[in-house]
Parts: sequence; structure tokens; C-alpha cells
Amino acid sequence: MPIQWNYRFALRTEGMKSSIIRELLKLTQDPDLISFAGGLPAPELFPVKEFTEASQKVLKEHGSKALQYSPTEGYIPLRELITERMNRDGIPVSADQILITSGSQQALDLTGEVFLDPGDAILLERPSYLGAIQAWTAYQARFVGAEIDKDGVNPDALRDGARSSPKFMYILPNFQNPGGTTLSEERRRKILELSEEFGMPVIEDDPYGSLRFEGEHLPPMAAIDALSNGGSLEHVIYLGTFSKILAPGLRLGWVAAKPEVMRYYVQAKQGQDLHTSILTQMIAYEVAKDGFLEEHIRKICEVYGQRRDIMVDAMKRYFPEEVTWTVPQGGLFLWATLPDGLDTGPLFKQAIAEKVAFVPGYVFYAPEIGKEPLRNSMRLNFSNAKPEQIEEGIKRLGRAIEKMMG
Amino acid sequence: MPIQWNYRFALRTEGMKSSIIRELLKLTQDPDLISFAGGLPAPELFPVKEFTEASQKVLKEHGSKALQYSPTEGYIPLRELITERMNRDGIPVSADQILITSGSQQALDLTGEVFLDPGDAILLERPSYLGAIQAWTAYQARFVGAEIDKDGVNPDALRDGARSSPKFMYILPNFQNPGGTTLSEERRRKILELSEEFGMPVIEDDPYGSLRFEGEHLPPMAAIDALSNGGSLEHVIYLGTFSKILAPGLRLGWVAAKPEVMRYYVQAKQGQDLHTSILTQMIAYEVAKDGFLEEHIRKICEVYGQRRDIMVDAMKRYFPEEVTWTVPQGGLFLWATLPDGLDTGPLFKQAIAEKVAFVPGYVFYAPEIGKEPLRNSMRLNFSNAKPEQIEEGIKRLGRAIEKMMG
Repeated sequence: MPIQWNYRFALRTEGMKSSIIRELLKLTQDPDLISFAGGLPAPELFPVKEFTEASQKVLKEHGSKALQYSPTEGYIPLRELITERMNRDGIPVSADQILITSGSQQALDLTGEVFLDPGDAILLERPSYLGAIQAWTAYQARFVGAEIDKDGVNPDALRDGARSSPKFMYILPNFQNPGGTTLSEERRRKILELSEEFGMPVIEDDPYGSLRFEGEHLPPMAAIDALSNGGSLEHVIYLGTFSKILAPGLRLGWVAAKPEVMRYYVQAKQGQDLHTSILTQMIAYEVAKDGFLEEHIRKICEVYGQRRDIMVDAMKRYFPEEVTWTVPQGGLFLWATLPDGLDTGPLFKQAIAEKVAFVPGYVFYAPEIGKEPLRNSMRLNFSNAKPEQIEEGIKRLGRAIEKMMG
Repeated sequence: MPIQWNYRFALRTEGMKSSIIRELLKLTQDPDLISFAGGLPAPELFPVKEFTEASQKVLKEHGSKALQYSPTEGYIPLRELITERMNRDGIPVSADQILITSGSQQALDLTGEVFLDPGDAILLERPSYLGAIQAWTAYQARFVGAEIDKDGVNPDALRDGARSSPKFMYILPNFQNPGGTTLSEERRRKILELSEEFGMPVIEDDPYGSLRFEGEHLPPMAAIDALSNGGSLEHVIYLGTFSKILAPGLRLGWVAAKPEVMRYYVQAKQGQDLHTSILTQMIAYEVAKDGFLEEHIRKICEVYGQRRDIMVDAMKRYFPEEVTWTVPQGGLFLWATLPDGLDTGPLFKQAIAEKVAFVPGYVFYAPEIGKEPLRNSMRLNFSNAKPEQIEEGIKRLGRAIEKMMG
């Protein structure tokens, strides 16, 4: 009897699908196409020379260790480096509260494994990070969304959503993906009050927090939480990553929380992959240490800030005046909105014909019964394309929008 | 209100615990202690020079690519290298049927994600690989065990277990961990007949298959399956890893199956960590290519074969004659059995006092209602310790056993 595979697969596979963005990106293989679709860092900024030297040093001096099995929790010097950075940011964690993960995507997945039973609700921003929605869909979660505006997610909308008794709130406070918005300090405090009132944890996902081009640095919710709880992380689980500040190809992220929570993250991680590559952890530490990482981040901020300016400037010149957009103070993305009634789904095809790509905004909305995603928005990435490509790409996109508006 | 974390955690966390082996290993930090407990390759055999050169080459020639995001499925040249090796072994897969995973531990976890609903049964060997039991416990699976003997798992015992309608069978055919046994070709065929009869997939986990010191190579079940199904993998999902033939610190493994199955593995992997580090994939390919891997495997086999001989020889001299053991034809482990009524749990403490460590056999038995694990066995690793340590460690262990037997 041949195997009836469809009767063998777990129920959760019914919700699984390949990321829409990855599917869209397959349409963008044309070398003449200018893509604002991905979330890729600028490859020309990768510190390749430093990585080359660091990998030499690590393998020559600690080759056996770098190639052997290693502890689930991660490489201690790297965890200490993370701790120092977080402490500077006001989050008083120690190295034993840090678990190194295979990118922050794994930290999101582990969050699902530690917290989610089938049918559990998650309170998250509308729109939100697609990778988180994808990871938690595999845990058969339900989603309850709260709309964002120019100051990030609205705490009153989160309060409404809290009625569904979600297991946790998921918040991207800085330069949100996809919205480009930053949560004001007042709202951060209100969200923590909500967390306290409902006894509901906050997952603070902060991949872009270090990439601020302008404006005042705001304290992470983890810092505010610790400050009002005697120096202890009580309500917040904090996720970080080296993908945007060093290199995504390493797959290095981390999660920090109070010890009773970390225990389960570590056990879940052990079952998932034993540990993250110790070779990449040691190389990343060797590159990042002695202040190099901070210096490198300043360089990235300078370049991305210029690219955002070039994109915004080109949008002013080439987009119909009815189009609006967020001007993020950092990060990789901005969010543009066309007049009501227009649909960026069909626009995507028109744009591909003009040899430019973006991601239609509707893909960033978690499925919710009775709620429809906005159809007239799009996410534009400004970190990956070079200045002259940004100018030309926005010109093409402006043309596609004009054709659509007729 | 402080967060009541215990009411937030998912039900599956009730089954989670840290690997007993990792807990035991924490007791073995004494540098004078000789450990046969871990499953670590010999670090002095790691091709450090080749890794150093390869990392130079990869970063100098393809630095931007090696540090950027990359496809979930994995690095194409590495997948082709795996395909060539599998084809030589009689498994006719193509590169698009290979998914690179973060060690074979992730392939085991993904197997759980793709197949297991809570309460589903898994048919596996008694004893079996602890990492698999740990991964699938997190998916709230039940276990149905079939005893192994000197020729591997007994197909009749598997047939009995098949009555519980397991989602799949999990088999380690070569130099089983922990038993050290190898499944005879006749039994491989019988297991495939069982798979066909019950329409039940076989997960063939083959981390040690290339590490044969002596005896005749036996075809993988995947090869027998394909041969009797017109060249197509129909019943078997095959798991492989570079951990034992190159270096575990890379965290590189793979899974191969028919395309309709691979689709879900890829989607599950995407949600778990987007992709495995492209830097380590490119470095591993650069080291392994042009025949180096096969040459390196020959060297490992020579050294591990000698170490097995040294261990077996020392056991003959230092162990009481009532103790028996398997003599594996390859791999990393052998399985020793004390007279009935003795318990290797208390022996472990006695052994630590003598400054030698092993893993008590009972930890490798999946929990089953109404079945007790064997208490009088132990797993001994012979790959990691050096010859003189093996001699001395077995002497110490013999002393501990004698003290226990009184």
C-alpha cells in the first residue's frame, strides 16, 4: 500500500504556507529589476575583511572548540557582549539570561513553542512582521490585531484586544516592520501598564533599535519594565539579532527574559537544534568586540539614513501627490499609502512590468475573522538598493502608480 | 499584577526537560575525569587547516553572498554534493529533494512539526536516540518501543507495535545509538514490507553509516525502497548529518524525501529559522569537495576502529567476566550489559568517584506505560577519548563495577 501522505501530516500543516514575500521574490530574478521588496541589508557594507581575519583567528587559535559540540545557551563571550550592550541600553540582564538563537526567527518560533497551545490568541500590531505570523501560525494560534498609527500601536486598541485573553502581546517598538513607525515613550509605558493590569507578557522584538538615523533614542520596554520592578525583567521578553547590525547569513539572534522563563526557552532550543553553530558565534564575537560593532553600526546608520532621504526625496518628485508615506527615523522600511480604493496587489504586477518591486501591504496583516487588511498600502525597503537605483526605482514605481490611477 | 508564568506556558512544556546526558555531563567537568559519556567526535581529527583555508576562500571570493540572507532549502553546491554521495549509496534523489537543516537534530524536530499531533504514536527502537525522544516529547507524542537484539530491531516486535497505528517508524539502521547494533539486510527488507503493509513511513536516521570500520556495507532502507519503487523514494524519509564525518560545530544536517513531503519540511524550516547559516554551508562545501570528505572519512574510520579495539580489549582485561557488550562494526558507541539485578544508575556515582563517566542505559528508553527500561546496561563512547585514556578509563570502570558486584 502506498503511503497516504495527506493522512499522515499533522493538522498544523494545514496552516503552513511558504512566505508570500519569498514567493513574490521569485518573480524578481530579472537583473534589470530594482527591488524594494526584500528586507536585506546592504551587502556592500558587510565587514568582509574583518570577517576574514576573524575566521582565521578563531580557527587557528581555537579550531577544535569552534568545530565541536557546544552548550545550548551559546558562547559565553558573545552572551557577555550582548549583556553589555543591553545594560548600556538600560536592561539589567546578566549573561545567563541570554540564549543565542539561530536568528531572531528561531527566537520567535521558540516563543511559540514555550507559550502557545492550539487556539491560543496572540495580541499583535496591525500590520506586523510576517515571519512572526508565519511561525505562530504553525502553532495553530489565533491573532488579535491592534491598529498602528504614526506613533506606533495604539494602547487603547491593545486594551480592546486584551479582552480575548491573549497569551502575550507582540510589539516591534522601533522602526516597525512593515510600518516604519516608532512607539512613543508614553505608549511604551501604557503598554507596560496594560501588561501589568492583565498579567500578560510583552514580547519586545527589537531588530532595528540600534539603527536610528535621527531623533532621540527611546528606552526599550524591557528597560522601563526593569526600572519599575527593582532591576528585574518581569513583564518583557526581549528579542535581538545580529542580522541587521552585522550580517544575516550568520543566523545569530538572542532572547532575554527572567530565569524561570529562560529555562523553557533553553530546553525548547535543545530539542530544536542542540545549539547554534559555535563557529559563527565565535567569529561574530571576534568581529564585534573591542568597539568594532558600535563603529560599524554608525556607518550603517549613515548610509541607510542617506538612502531613506533619497527615497523620500524621489517619492516627492515622482509619486502622485495623493500618495502618503511614513518617514521612519531608523530601520530598513517605509510604508506608503495610496488613495482609498486603490489596490497594491494589481499594482505589483504593473510594477513588475516597469521593472520595480515592492511588497503589497496586505500580506503583513495576520488573518482575523471579520477584519480585512488595508489593500492600498505597500512596504518599501531602502537599505538594499544603491542610491542611483533608488532614484530610478521610485521613478518607475511612480509611473506604475500613475498608470493605475489613470 | 505580576505575571503568573506557570499559567502562561504551553501544555507541551510539562514534558520538557533538559537532556539527562547534558545534566550528567555537568558532573564531569573534572579535568582528571575520563568520559565515555558524550557523543563527541575526536577533536584532534577535525581538519582545522582545511577549514581555515576554506573560510578564507569563501569570504574573499564570495563574502557578500556568505553573509547575506539565502534560500531556506540550502546552498545548491552543498545539496549537490550530498546528492552525489546518496546516489553512490543507491538512493536516487536529486538536489531539490534535499533540505539543509541545522544539524540532524533540526531534521528530527521538523519531522515532529510535519507529522505529529498531540497524542500521536511513534514506533521506535528500544533503546533509541535520546535527542529524537526529546524532540518528539515536545510535540506531545506517545512512544511505542520495539526491542533490539544483536541484529538491530526485531521486525516482529515492530509488527506488534504497528497495531498502535503510529504516525511513523523511527529507525537507526547503522551502528545504532546507543546499542551499537546494525540492522541486517533481511530485517531492512522486512521493515520496508511492514511500511508498505501498514502504509506507515520510515524515518531512517543515518548519522554513522559512513563510519564503518569492518564488515560489508549494507544498503540504506532508502535505497531498497527506491529500487522496488521505480527509482522513487516512496516509504522512507532519510536523515543525514555532517556532524560525525566533518564537524558538529557547523550544525549541518539534511533531510531527503519525496517532493510532496519535502514541501512541508521546507515550510516548517522557514518558520523555524528562515535558513541555516550560509557561511557554514559554503565553508563545509569548500572543505568537503573534490574528494576530501571521503579521504577524511577513511582517516576517521581508521582511528575510531583502533579505539573500539582498544576499548574492547581493555574490557576483556578489566571487566568482570559476567559483563557482556556489543562490538559495533562502526560508529561511536558500544553497549555493555551487567548481570541482571545490577543498576548502572548507582554505578554512575561510583564511577564518578573513580573519575570515569558513561551514560546509564535506562536514559535511552522512551517512556511507555507498563514497560520499564533495562537498568543494567550502559552506553560507552569510544570516539572521543585518546587510546591511553580509554585503557585507563576502562580500568577505572572495571574497578567501579567490581566494587558494586562486591
